[in-house]
Amino acid sequence: MQILDGKSCSEQIRREISEQVSGLRAAGRRAPHLAAVLVGDDGASETYVANKVRDCDEIGFESTVVRMRAGTSEEELLGRVAELNADANIDGFIVQLPLPSHIDEHKITLAIDAEKDVDGFGPQSVGLMCLGLPAFVSATPNGVMELLSRNGIETEGKNCVVLGRSNIVGTPMSILLSRNATPGNCTVTIAHSRTRGLQELCARADILIAAIGRPGFVSADMVKSGAVVIDVGTTRVPDASRKSGFRLAGDVDFDRVAPKCSWITPVPGGVGPMTRASLLQNTLKAYHNRMRESDV
Amino acid sequence: MQILDGKSCSEQIRREISEQVSGLRAAGRRAPHLAAVLVGDDGASETYVANKVRDCDEIGFESTVVRMRAGTSEEELLGRVAELNADANIDGFIVQLPLPSHIDEHKITLAIDAEKDVDGFGPQSVGLMCLGLPAFVSATPNGVMELLSRNGIETEGKNCVVLGRSNIVGTPMSILLSRNATPGNCTVTIAHSRTRGLQELCARADILIAAIGRPGFVSADMVKSGAVVIDVGTTRVPDASRKSGFRLAGDVDFDRVAPKCSWITPVPGGVGPMTRASLLQNTLKAYHNRMRESDV
Repeated sequence: MQILDGKSCSEQIRREISEQVSGLRAAGRRAPHLAAVLVGDDGASETYVANKVRDCDEIGFESTVVRMRAGTSEEELLGRVAELNADANIDGFIVQLPLPSHIDEHKITLAIDAEKDVDGFGPQSVGLMCLGLPAFVSATPNGVMELLSRNGIETEGKNCVVLGRSNIVGTPMSILLSRNATPGNCTVTIAHSRTRGLQELCARADILIAAIGRPGFVSADMVKSGAVVIDVGTTRVPDASRKSGFRLAGDVDFDRVAPKCSWITPVPGGVGPMTRASLLQNTLKAYHNRMRESDV
Repeated sequence: MQILDGKSCSEQIRREISEQVSGLRAAGRRAPHLAAVLVGDDGASETYVANKVRDCDEIGFESTVVRMRAGTSEEELLGRVAELNADANIDGFIVQLPLPSHIDEHKITLAIDAEKDVDGFGPQSVGLMCLGLPAFVSATPNGVMELLSRNGIETEGKNCVVLGRSNIVGTPMSILLSRNATPGNCTVTIAHSRTRGLQELCARADILIAAIGRPGFVSADMVKSGAVVIDVGTTRVPDASRKSGFRLAGDVDFDRVAPKCSWITPVPGGVGPMTRASLLQNTLKAYHNRMRESDV
């Protein structure tokens, strides 16, 4: 069994981007600039946004956090999105989800200019990805593809089961792995809460991707011997022994599943850091796209 | 075994649309207007476009065919698309594929205004469909969903295998059937040329959708007893006994497969007429969207 080390893989990606940014600065160009909109004060969202800022600092991107109070109206937020769309100094931005329940997330996602949609959640990004055209691929699926690719994991002709059909992970994951590309060319089955015979289905998978957010859901009897297991789950589980009061738990019962695998991602240190690196890749892509268009 | 009769189902849809159009006219409104751009003189494309015009006539839509010679340049075609985008009298339009090889189909598809993309091939349409938002769903997958829905075929929890991963049939079909909706909630596997163990995989399917364009490819041993079989294939096979010189052949070996099925679509008279009806549904939707926006 080998660990699919997302931490070291993401560090490699960040080094590559950092070198590119140094090159841009040396050539007298400005650095890429990412903005993040944070509405309210959800603890996990605070952490995610703080991490994004830190990542930008480390590799030399500019970053801006736009803080808005929990009571922000949909109109106010749409107004802020419109400003960011129009702001020539911002290459890409994200609106951290989840949003307070009085705001329609779809409406916000649809309002983000496709050229700046570095989270890849908007219809134009999703559609381009589906069509196999250059696109901002949402961060987690993109990170998983990088992890497979950079570790030389063979995917062609493999049976792949994706657990979970969310718009931002399961569904794009299934599309990316089934397309005629490398990595890709898997025979993909997308499973979800209505799937029958789940254990048997998963046990046939050469590559199993768990993205349902239920800690420890994937047990050893659901995993084929020699399988590649990718654990996208990162649920905060209360843990009094930690300073933070919680630990991150994956969807996979790691201790029992790992011995059966050829490769497995740990949680933390697997998909999480890859997701973070993907946002930086998308921001760099947005920057280059804009430079090509405008030669700013 | 019961026949999934696309002909009568599509006639029902056309009657419904026709009644709506009569209502619009009676209220003094103009009728929906579909345009089709036909480049060159490919025989099959001529037929498809002629059928679209006839369908429009029958239900009371306006239609316009824009004919362009085979030597049309990409720029000329893009110019024509821009005119149709801007034409307030056109609710939706399609550019009949395939295009001559010197024209980049993606570039044309990307140029069509998303509001008028009634073929549903553009990234905005595909992305909205993926996200489960109101969208122009491409005609064949939409027609299959209508056929399942209007015949009361249960899909929830069923194992579905989609043969073929094309952008306009296989991939959207897999997304529509896996989403949390009715029809939907299938456990979908998307199979293709790199899939191993295809016979075994297909033989586990409760619902089998064949969309690969290889006449008679699906043999009886690939079909589970009691399965629902949807044959999307319509390949023109030379046939000297026909006036046209060809017959339409499906992907399924109908004579041997049909006795094993609970439901099966014939070719012709199955998915084909449903595809035609879907374009009319999308055109009506485009019309209503535009009316809502502009109150023209």
